[in-house]
Amino acid sequence: MDEVLTYDCTLRDGEQGEGIALSLEDKLRIVQRLDRFGIDVIEGGFPASNPKDIEFFERVAALPLEHARIAAFGSTCRKGVAAEEDVGLADLLRSGAPIAAVVGKCWDIQVEMTLQASLDENLRMVHDSVAYLKARGMDVVFDAEHFFDGYRSNPEYAVAVVREASDAGADSIDLCDTNGGMLPHEVARITAAVANSLPGQRLGIHCHNDSGCAVANTLASVSAGVSQVQGTVNGYGERVGNADLMTVIADLQLKMGRDCVEDLSQLVGVANFVAETCNRALPAHTPYTGAAAFAHKGGLHASALTRFRGAYEHIDPAAVGNKPAILVSELAGKASLIAKAKSLGIDLSGNPDMVQRIVDDVKNREAVGYSYEVADGSLIVLMQRHLGTFEPHFTLESFRVIVDDHEDTGSWAKDAASEATIKIHVGDRRFVATGEGTGPVGALDSALRLAIEESYPEVAGMELTDFKVRILDENVGTGAITRVHIITSDASGSWGTVGVSENIIEASWNALVDSIEYGLMRMGK
Amino acid sequence: MDEVLTYDCTLRDGEQGEGIALSLEDKLRIVQRLDRFGIDVIEGGFPASNPKDIEFFERVAALPLEHARIAAFGSTCRKGVAAEEDVGLADLLRSGAPIAAVVGKCWDIQVEMTLQASLDENLRMVHDSVAYLKARGMDVVFDAEHFFDGYRSNPEYAVAVVREASDAGADSIDLCDTNGGMLPHEVARITAAVANSLPGQRLGIHCHNDSGCAVANTLASVSAGVSQVQGTVNGYGERVGNADLMTVIADLQLKMGRDCVEDLSQLVGVANFVAETCNRALPAHTPYTGAAAFAHKGGLHASALTRFRGAYEHIDPAAVGNKPAILVSELAGKASLIAKAKSLGIDLSGNPDMVQRIVDDVKNREAVGYSYEVADGSLIVLMQRHLGTFEPHFTLESFRVIVDDHEDTGSWAKDAASEATIKIHVGDRRFVATGEGTGPVGALDSALRLAIEESYPEVAGMELTDFKVRILDENVGTGAITRVHIITSDASGSWGTVGVSENIIEASWNALVDSIEYGLMRMGK
Repeated sequence: MDEVLTYDCTLRDGEQGEGIALSLEDKLRIVQRLDRFGIDVIEGGFPASNPKDIEFFERVAALPLEHARIAAFGSTCRKGVAAEEDVGLADLLRSGAPIAAVVGKCWDIQVEMTLQASLDENLRMVHDSVAYLKARGMDVVFDAEHFFDGYRSNPEYAVAVVREASDAGADSIDLCDTNGGMLPHEVARITAAVANSLPGQRLGIHCHNDSGCAVANTLASVSAGVSQVQGTVNGYGERVGNADLMTVIADLQLKMGRDCVEDLSQLVGVANFVAETCNRALPAHTPYTGAAAFAHKGGLHASALTRFRGAYEHIDPAAVGNKPAILVSELAGKASLIAKAKSLGIDLSGNPDMVQRIVDDVKNREAVGYSYEVADGSLIVLMQRHLGTFEPHFTLESFRVIVDDHEDTGSWAKDAASEATIKIHVGDRRFVATGEGTGPVGALDSALRLAIEESYPEVAGMELTDFKVRILDENVGTGAITRVHIITSDASGSWGTVGVSENIIEASWNALVDSIEYGLMRMGK
Repeated sequence: MDEVLTYDCTLRDGEQGEGIALSLEDKLRIVQRLDRFGIDVIEGGFPASNPKDIEFFERVAALPLEHARIAAFGSTCRKGVAAEEDVGLADLLRSGAPIAAVVGKCWDIQVEMTLQASLDENLRMVHDSVAYLKARGMDVVFDAEHFFDGYRSNPEYAVAVVREASDAGADSIDLCDTNGGMLPHEVARITAAVANSLPGQRLGIHCHNDSGCAVANTLASVSAGVSQVQGTVNGYGERVGNADLMTVIADLQLKMGRDCVEDLSQLVGVANFVAETCNRALPAHTPYTGAAAFAHKGGLHASALTRFRGAYEHIDPAAVGNKPAILVSELAGKASLIAKAKSLGIDLSGNPDMVQRIVDDVKNREAVGYSYEVADGSLIVLMQRHLGTFEPHFTLESFRVIVDDHEDTGSWAKDAASEATIKIHVGDRRFVATGEGTGPVGALDSALRLAIEESYPEVAGMELTDFKVRILDENVGTGAITRVHIITSDASGSWGTVGVSENIIEASWNALVDSIEYGLMRMGK
């Protein structure tokens, strides 16, 4: 099969999506998950835009990636500035990333009006920037911004720009539909013209979904000669989003005979992992990866389905790690639970009854709102409870959380105070402790630590590093189910836990307890 | 311009979408709205499947529609049954609808395995059913089920089926990608083959989005000769949904020079009307119609946008009734704040010092985590505070929230209880009230309502309908800033408010107070 390179923009374009904000740890986790999936290039952002991005490139360089290569993103040198003098290009070099993604303008009107440079000066900027980075050992992907709009406005100039990048040695020239307004027939026609003008040059494609055709445009360009596809996981991105790289990969691999990743059955897992990390629910109607993608509701179809499997399924759902009917999760299947348990150091292979019991429990919990995709700590505790090997380090008698607030100052002054009192048993001993905090969960965390620190001084080394809340059925207002995800870290790593309740404090408590229990467990306590 | 007929399936396929259930009145309202928009054909469902659908056809016949014609949906006659004897065809006739949409099988394997009929018998069923309905005065749309899968399996037979329908007088033959698995190049190739085989026959297209290409497939088939497009408003439909008819219409009309509707600027209104009627939020990232479809967040783009309007917009948003979203950062600019205030009924134009003060306050609040994008209620309260026109309906003396939890049961049992006591002043009077709830915010909401209901009985009509929590700087764990967004509704509409604090309870309180204050304000209290 012809290989098509996959290029992920989730950490840059995806983060422009409404309501998405990724911490440094989130980004590193996504990199590792995409690497394991077999994505070829992962774009990490501007290496100079803020301290978080600079630290990202330092940290990511230390990760033991199997497959993926990291790209740093930046622009060509500025007008009137030599490549050698340009601070942006220097930042790209300093990032330590093996690949530079350099964006340059291809639309004559944009060069003159937005950049306010001459068309010739823009050609120089493109050529010199690519040549400069190539000479210093970086691979260069030239992102041809607004290429399609530019081609429609002035085809000679648009092609001249990418020819400069090609002549300067760009490893790939990725044609961008920056405004997302193209339709497949135009993308195919223009891509073919470029392929014809630059024989032997690797081309890529970067589409946005403003016409509702981002995936189709990407596929059309592959048919026309492109061999690198850019996109974001779940299509996250500004305005209406980017091409969903998950859908593109599935279409290319299952329907166009192109080779992208080795194990496509990870698709659903990757989509959900990234969604959870972005604190977004993956819409049930997402192609291939959504929970309803292979659900059958119409009575006519469902009965036909039983007679003839292929009648109403465009692919075998298992090929992308999905399931017919309402998918609960990757874990609600015996084989995958056994595999997951094994990866967490628990051998369930010789115990089919136990596996069934755990699968049933997971399904029941998922039905009320639990999600174990980023909560290995809670999953281990749950499995050990079933196995009878769970020995709680402490048991709760009761807690009480009090939040006091005075005077409505009409400002956002932080005048509320929280206090939590906890009564807990460790072995035969009973501990009562009171903790304070700005918020109720902080107070509870503090009280729990005070109560058990004498018995388990190790808790001082554990830090609660991430705390996410999702209201699951938002239509019922404050009576809705709340899911809390916590990430806790110590010197040796980090782990996720989950809690669910109608009461946000109780949901937090459940996640907190699992985080400390599993933290102690993994230390061998 | 070449006309393309628009055919809406929202009332049949759309209602198969997860969580969508339309009452009879809902359906009639949608019909009237689509008629006003200029949709050509509206499919109403099976006229015999249930009493609601039968009544629908009676009621819809009495509506004074300007433009749209109604289609009743059914199957060909059953195998071994003459058209004259078939109860399903009789139901179609009895519906009184001017158009019959008759679905028939085109995939040889399906005929034999699902229908368990001979290939010849299926041809007879198609021919006789179409001829029977035509002879009795109905227009007939033949829905060629699984046409593309069928063509790939046995092109001669698939074409033979639609030729029967054509010979029997079908007004349109609509090719269905029932499983939604096609890609545009296949749809184009197969459609062209059919157009070639049946010259002069009107063809239509019906796509599902399982490959993420429903819109593109629809457009590809139009390029290949189709002149009737089926789809659902907002793409509602089972699994991953149907082609979004809103996107299809905008693409055809703005980008392919085809004529669909007279006033495309109703597009956003229609999309939102149907979303609301279906009780679904229209995702902000929906092409053309979503609230974020023309939003610009990236700093690079936003600054370029001011210099060159067309640079980052694929179409003029006004063409579809949308507008470039007023962003948070944009709101922190004087001109846009004045415009926003005007849209909320507050005139700031003659008061530049005041505008500067409000802009500074908004900026400061955004820096600590406020976001006014979906919080007009809070923005109005804030502006009125600055203008000195804000008269609080109540002032807080203090509140206390207590959450009690007992025993660690190791399950997700809901054993926590919450209680809130509030001390509040309305004018000269002091009220103390205690509310209970499953969670702390519900308890607080309940206590606030109890405390003020004697003074403001109107609060009984306000309902908290949505509650969203976001932790803003997730790296600092429980000490992070929490932002709470609340949507409150009464009989006349709904409004959003926002609260921010390090304490989730206080953030909720702030959003709650604004929601009640603004709710009373908009009633003229």
